[in-house]
Amino acid sequence: MKAVVLASGGLDSTVTAAMAREEGATLYLLTIMYGQRHQIEIQRAQAIATWLQAAEHKILKLALHEFGGSALTGQGDVPKHRSNQERETGIPSTYVPARNTVFLSLALAYAEVVDADAIFIGANVLDYSGYPDCRPEFLQTFEAAARLGTKRGVNGKPIKIHAPLLLLSKAEIIQKGQALGVPFECTHSCYDPLDDGLACGRCDSCVIRLKGFRDAGCQDPVPYAADGSNLST
Amino acid sequence: MKAVVLASGGLDSTVTAAMAREEGATLYLLTIMYGQRHQIEIQRAQAIATWLQAAEHKILKLALHEFGGSALTGQGDVPKHRSNQERETGIPSTYVPARNTVFLSLALAYAEVVDADAIFIGANVLDYSGYPDCRPEFLQTFEAAARLGTKRGVNGKPIKIHAPLLLLSKAEIIQKGQALGVPFECTHSCYDPLDDGLACGRCDSCVIRLKGFRDAGCQDPVPYAADGSNLST
Repeated sequence: MKAVVLASGGLDSTVTAAMAREEGATLYLLTIMYGQRHQIEIQRAQAIATWLQAAEHKILKLALHEFGGSALTGQGDVPKHRSNQERETGIPSTYVPARNTVFLSLALAYAEVVDADAIFIGANVLDYSGYPDCRPEFLQTFEAAARLGTKRGVNGKPIKIHAPLLLLSKAEIIQKGQALGVPFECTHSCYDPLDDGLACGRCDSCVIRLKGFRDAGCQDPVPYAADGSNLST
Repeated sequence: MKAVVLASGGLDSTVTAAMAREEGATLYLLTIMYGQRHQIEIQRAQAIATWLQAAEHKILKLALHEFGGSALTGQGDVPKHRSNQERETGIPSTYVPARNTVFLSLALAYAEVVDADAIFIGANVLDYSGYPDCRPEFLQTFEAAARLGTKRGVNGKPIKIHAPLLLLSKAEIIQKGQALGVPFECTHSCYDPLDDGLACGRCDSCVIRLKGFRDAGCQDPVPYAADGSNLST
């Protein structure tokens, strides 16, 4: 089996890739540089690609920031807590418009070119902080569209979309990664790293990650800025 | 109504944009440069954006050619007739893997940012030369995925996908464009233009366009290379 894996360099996508490899897949990693601030993720993704012995690793630039619209692609401060508007809609300001739709469509194009049987994405519904494009019903419907809109689908070999972390807690994801020997020190989760690459320890993503390591009963090997450094112990 | 229109600079997408404007939409044009050879389309798309009085025109670079996989994104010759493999599968070698899925997903991201109500795409099923992602059932299913995967969808204001040319013949599209005053001389359809920008007159796209103008009973104002120049008269 050949599998395209959306690999951001983060914890979830790395565990996802390791699970795909465990299932015997030959890995085609796709990292999308979409103008986010944390370019450090790209370097980590390359280190992880080497560890995973991926057949290929494509890094695609995509100037999504030209559309504007999100704290993760713009130049503003990443909010550390939710606004009233976010509380009302349930969708955080770190939401990147249609991100998973865009990412899955690019993975689909890549999958058709390399004749891959599946796409793996690290979407997760329990730690889901209000992103509509992490929901199972979205993924199922996108898979149906992909079946109708591709050569492989027409030829009766539709590309399946796998989100093996979908129903796992962060602690379960970390335990799964441990069992597969994932080099957590290479993974990066912070939305708002310091200039030297240190994770902030305070953004939503850091808070969820640190709690996950605590719940899993182990230490996060990633270094944090001073005020977050002791949170996982 | 605000509408994002996928505007390639071609005949179909220009007529589509003119139809959206006719319906009273404020236009947000999106041109995706995906490494195709005919960069001339970009210049035409800009001229057309001016004619349409678009509120905004975004030109997004996307290095799809890094994936390879199609005559339209690669460096090889554009085939002038179909191979045995194409005849068997019904899908031409000019098929760009998952192109409309990718284009619609980028239009969806843009639509969320500008808070647009609709996306217009110039997909067409009758002149459909075997592209699975031009089929109505694909567009409907993508629309359903877009409803589930976006903030607007969650908030009960799903982004609709309009393909107003879907069931029209090329001659009908041309007649529609004539009625709306579309500057056909700015539109570009050739898959394989000469170095000076002249349309080849021989590729699938030129042949369909020229037949469309003949069937519509009018002259294509676009200049063609010598061996195709008299085909529309």
